[in-house]
Amino acid sequence: MNVPRLATALTGPLLDLERKFLAAQCEIEAWFRSQWLEHAPPFYGSVDLRNSGFKLAPVDMNLFPGGFNNLNPDFTPLCVQAVQSALEKICPDARRLLLIPENHTRNQYYLQNVASLARILKLAGLNVRLGTLNPEITAPTTLELPNGGTLTVEPLQRNGRRVGLPGFDPCVVLLNNDLSAGIPDILRDIDQNLLPPLHAGWFVRRKTHHFREYDGVAAEFGQLLGIDPWYINPYFGQVSQLDFQTREGEERLAAEVERILGLTAAKYRELGITDAPYAIVKADAGTYGMGVMSVKSPADVIGLNRKQRNKMAVVKEGLEVSDVIVQEGVPTFETLEEAVAEPVVYMMDRFVVGGFYRVHTERGADENLNAPGAYFKPLAFDTPLSTPDCDGSPDCAPNRFYAYGVVARLALLAASREIESTESVLESISMAA
Amino acid sequence: MNVPRLATALTGPLLDLERKFLAAQCEIEAWFRSQWLEHAPPFYGSVDLRNSGFKLAPVDMNLFPGGFNNLNPDFTPLCVQAVQSALEKICPDARRLLLIPENHTRNQYYLQNVASLARILKLAGLNVRLGTLNPEITAPTTLELPNGGTLTVEPLQRNGRRVGLPGFDPCVVLLNNDLSAGIPDILRDIDQNLLPPLHAGWFVRRKTHHFREYDGVAAEFGQLLGIDPWYINPYFGQVSQLDFQTREGEERLAAEVERILGLTAAKYRELGITDAPYAIVKADAGTYGMGVMSVKSPADVIGLNRKQRNKMAVVKEGLEVSDVIVQEGVPTFETLEEAVAEPVVYMMDRFVVGGFYRVHTERGADENLNAPGAYFKPLAFDTPLSTPDCDGSPDCAPNRFYAYGVVARLALLAASREIESTESVLESISMAA
Repeated sequence: MNVPRLATALTGPLLDLERKFLAAQCEIEAWFRSQWLEHAPPFYGSVDLRNSGFKLAPVDMNLFPGGFNNLNPDFTPLCVQAVQSALEKICPDARRLLLIPENHTRNQYYLQNVASLARILKLAGLNVRLGTLNPEITAPTTLELPNGGTLTVEPLQRNGRRVGLPGFDPCVVLLNNDLSAGIPDILRDIDQNLLPPLHAGWFVRRKTHHFREYDGVAAEFGQLLGIDPWYINPYFGQVSQLDFQTREGEERLAAEVERILGLTAAKYRELGITDAPYAIVKADAGTYGMGVMSVKSPADVIGLNRKQRNKMAVVKEGLEVSDVIVQEGVPTFETLEEAVAEPVVYMMDRFVVGGFYRVHTERGADENLNAPGAYFKPLAFDTPLSTPDCDGSPDCAPNRFYAYGVVARLALLAASREIESTESVLESISMAA
Repeated sequence: MNVPRLATALTGPLLDLERKFLAAQCEIEAWFRSQWLEHAPPFYGSVDLRNSGFKLAPVDMNLFPGGFNNLNPDFTPLCVQAVQSALEKICPDARRLLLIPENHTRNQYYLQNVASLARILKLAGLNVRLGTLNPEITAPTTLELPNGGTLTVEPLQRNGRRVGLPGFDPCVVLLNNDLSAGIPDILRDIDQNLLPPLHAGWFVRRKTHHFREYDGVAAEFGQLLGIDPWYINPYFGQVSQLDFQTREGEERLAAEVERILGLTAAKYRELGITDAPYAIVKADAGTYGMGVMSVKSPADVIGLNRKQRNKMAVVKEGLEVSDVIVQEGVPTFETLEEAVAEPVVYMMDRFVVGGFYRVHTERGADENLNAPGAYFKPLAFDTPLSTPDCDGSPDCAPNRFYAYGVVARLALLAASREIESTESVLESISMAA
């Protein structure tokens, strides 16, 4: 696959941080192996990274990745091997897998993702069918794909403590639907393996839970490598019970922005970094780059106009935003054709299986790049992330990518711990309901 | 990697057998997963396959594979992922691996294999050093490679119940030396993980043990698919206490050849196959294609001339041949530029990680192709074996390769069972010594 080279990413000098990762590779890999024995990795996940030259950190962790169509097809065997490895642990006997996609059947990009994911699962030796939660789909429906292929989605069917399709009783149910709209009754208390578990859905999940676990992971990893964990970990805080429409909580939000900017500025001074600190305010639950603001001062969140308030108040599926995460902004120093680029790393089981650059031609280095629609242009990595070339030049692409794979796996490990620690949250929600 | 296409292999019609494999892929993969939970796969292995158009079968299983340099480098990430998977089970804490290569330090092809293997292990995050059993190497010795690289081998050192190098105490010891010459005292009763175990070495191992276990595997797999296991399993028998030099046992050998040819002829008649049956006589222990004969009649093993006797009497490291396996010959119908080709499939842990064709320009379709030296010309497969394309044409290369990967894994499973069942053999040898 011929991919344009990123200007700074692949030709700039290798960071001190990346050198440290490469030098400690044996320790890092042994540490990860021991961690995965204690914490089961999620079935899959993708991580948005930011590389500022002085800092390399995850800024978002998606447990329902939606860009498998953007991965380099040369790496498909890595995905297949990872799925086989996951199945061996979860359900060695599995023959049939029910994949539950998002409800939006008209998003061609998303449908291509579903087709790519289904192909990987089929190649791993599974009989795969698609079941939908979309109430508008009441009979098997064939959707056309831009590449000429088709996908057939069918309405889910509940049978006692099992979910399936007519004539199809799956061993494993895989969610590619992030459950932003809530937990559907049809999926509650089923006997089958449900991956990821219901409480990983955005109805329950909170970014601040994730980054609290990431704090612990980054601290342990920092100790392993003898580095300040800040180099891989952005500051963050939570502000809850906001109402963007009535401006309730505005002052508390401004105070948290001030705190995060202050911490960042102090660290920048300590390390002699001359960049201007900024912060990202985003919905604590939810995805798709909605409900996101980039701010440079506490004043930026005071007295938002109607358009800004509307943008922040609601995310996917009309979910209202009342809690936000305020996160230290990590500028990206990677550019492609003068546009800003952000690496997205894909993992299945505990393995890095690919990635791509999210490139945005109309945004600055300190802005959110996960904007909806056609604004971002995916570029598949052309080198696997698992194979640093220890004998080659330290500046070469595989070594840069190794560092990305390490930080992405740190976020994946945080997600494992997050899923473990939030299991009781679902129970408490169910009890209250 | 641009690889010439094999004439018949990749353009001929897909066999009925291969169609059955593809149709039963979900059952096959679930069955393998359950088998690997019961039987630990060897750390690595390579399998020589024969594809006759009507039959696809393993003819040799190597537990000390020596051709990693012949694999398509695009598949290196698959090897790395498989090694990480193996380490997690064997020794998650491993940081240092001692690789013990063969003693022949002047075989440039072999040294390139060692370099490729060491690179894979390093990429998996291991600190790798080479320790040699060669008594001529008494100090660290740097060997030049044709590609300009170097390898440093060092004399092994024993410390109590551990083996290592000065300043290097490995967690795992990996043999790439097949122990044809016997089991070195320095490796006996060590506390470290030794892979594969000592009794997998050719001093103890017998091809007939392997194919006895393969009989069981093929029968179970045949039942799973509802096929006659003969389609994937060659007939074989053992003749022991032979002395090629004094012709002792010649009549017993001829009788066994007659039996195998008779069984094969009967099966050919039953299935309407018009090929002439033949048999392969080879040393029951040993490798490197020495001590191998292709015979078409019992008379072919009576009254061998001196050259033929010498060829059969001794294999690698001067090991005398007293026991042989007589194996049904499986002709190969794969050709490249009018030369005969034989697929060799490489596996690490339970995963197929690559393969190549052994091509021989001066041998016939019914002869042994694993001849020493420059006669065979490796051709890396350009498609991974793990990813059949269910939606594509059944005749396409990935589908052909899927069948190869299945049969190779059947042989790997037989090797797992063989290693389990022969553990006591080493003990009885040690007691007798």
